[in-house]
Amino acid sequence: MSIAEVSRRMLDAYPRDITIDRDLLVECIAACSDCAQACTHCADACLSEPDVASLVRCIRTDLDCADVCAATGRVISRQAERDAGISRALLEACMTACRACGEECESHAQHGMEHCAVCAERCRRCEEACGRLAGAMS
Amino acid sequence: MSIAEVSRRMLDAYPRDITIDRDLLVECIAACSDCAQACTHCADACLSEPDVASLVRCIRTDLDCADVCAATGRVISRQAERDAGISRALLEACMTACRACGEECESHAQHGMEHCAVCAERCRRCEEACGRLAGAMS
Amino acid sequence: MSIAEVSRRMLDAYPRDITIDRDLLVECIAACSDCAQACTHCADACLSEPDVASLVRCIRTDLDCADVCAATGRVISRQAERDAGISRALLEACMTACRACGEECESHAQHGMEHCAVCAERCRRCEEACGRLAGAMS
Amino acid sequence: MSIAEVSRRMLDAYPRDITIDRDLLVECIAACSDCAQACTHCADACLSEPDVASLVRCIRTDLDCADVCAATGRVISRQAERDAGISRALLEACMTACRACGEECESHAQHGMEHCAVCAERCRRCEEACGRLAGAMS
Repeated sequence: MSIAEVSRRMLDAYPRDITIDRDLLVECIAACSDCAQACTHCADACLSEPDVASLVRCIRTDLDCADVCAATGRVISRQAERDAGISRALLEACMTACRACGEECESHAQHGMEHCAVCAERCRRCEEACGRLAGAMS
Repeated sequence: MSIAEVSRRMLDAYPRDITIDRDLLVECIAACSDCAQACTHCADACLSEPDVASLVRCIRTDLDCADVCAATGRVISRQAERDAGISRALLEACMTACRACGEECESHAQHGMEHCAVCAERCRRCEEACGRLAGAMS
Repeated sequence: MSIAEVSRRMLDAYPRDITIDRDLLVECIAACSDCAQACTHCADACLSEPDVASLVRCIRTDLDCADVCAATGRVISRQAERDAGISRALLEACMTACRACGEECESHAQHGMEHCAVCAERCRRCEEACGRLAGAMS
Repeated sequence: MSIAEVSRRMLDAYPRDITIDRDLLVECIAACSDCAQACTHCADACLSEPDVASLVRCIRTDLDCADVCAATGRVISRQAERDAGISRALLEACMTACRACGEECESHAQHGMEHCAVCAERCRRCEEACGRLAGAMS
């Protein structure tokens, strides 16, 4: 079962009303989870490259982005007594982290680093999903 | 893209040899991620139930299980200079947390709590996936 | 050894220049760590109160605030190839979470909940420390 | 206020009985927090060393140890409906991670890496504190 399916089933079983667009929410939860996973793998793959010294910035943004995506995914998953202010501010921070990490990874993807290409793609998708959810919360 | 697909693509792009069974690894990474997500949702859904006082044990094991699954998923995702001892000990702890949380959720599922039913199923799957990966590491 | 002492010793041993005010940085790292710890305890103490149903909002903001503070503490601890944009956006989100959690806890502190009083104090201190560090990064 | 002071005040305000030795508990919570912080700094300092390629194993064990200590600190901080089995298994995993990371850091400390010396000391202290708490739970 994918994260999106787990989240959808859990939200369908939620005992109170959910006042936010469920599709955007599920998409964003899954995107945060995917992106955190891709960034954790990418930092580790960069550490294993022969020329690790050239990848320090990439490892660092991967670690940051993984931490921010993980926290964001947890916070937006919670519907009990939701405070839209916290979610929106964190979605903004997550978009910033995904953009920075996506750009850094993209620059290495252009030199043939496949793990960076996958990670850049996940970062872009997560940035977009966070933007759509933040928009729906405004 | 599911967590399993993200992890498979990232491991395929890993620049060194991977000495562990890749299918078991991908299955366990995805199961840890699914289970952490289900437990985060379940704690929140329990908090939103009319009779929250009867669900304190469930919320508590959900929070623990989410934390242990998240840490386990991160550690086993890393292949650089892998220390099998850390992974094995953490997989054992994750199995213990998933078993405790799965049993607690199962008891509420039998009284009609659908979010606990989904969570119990994810806990069991994660416990099994951790057991298979730990077995392959022995 | 306190978190502030650990961080100071580690930053003193950092092999490159640190371009940000070290006192503000250490203060903010320690405040994020304190606040995450207080929020984790407070959620758990609320869960253990006789009238847990009246504390659902408090538990929820505690869980959010703990997650955001933990992520913020990690990101600002990293000096390698620092991206001030990610730090600033996350410090803003952390201030928002600390303010919401501090206000919620303060309302329960006024009705004699000592764990909420301690948590409210940690949240305010963390909000202030994040504000000072964000100011120094502008 | 140090993590130990925060935890002591929060546990003193806990609304139910605490059935475990409070001194050992507070010591272990603070040690997990210290060690997670030291490991996060150490990974980052290693990434910033001129010869980062020789420190890949150290960075990797730092990242693992930080994740395991953070999860352990959270789980043992929770007293509501405590399941000693989860805590004990996680304390065992934390001891394993701290031992591995402490040994790795110690080997670099002997070659003059001060951040590794501080980190090794925090890892040993955390391993000991986890051992004492696990012993009290048996």
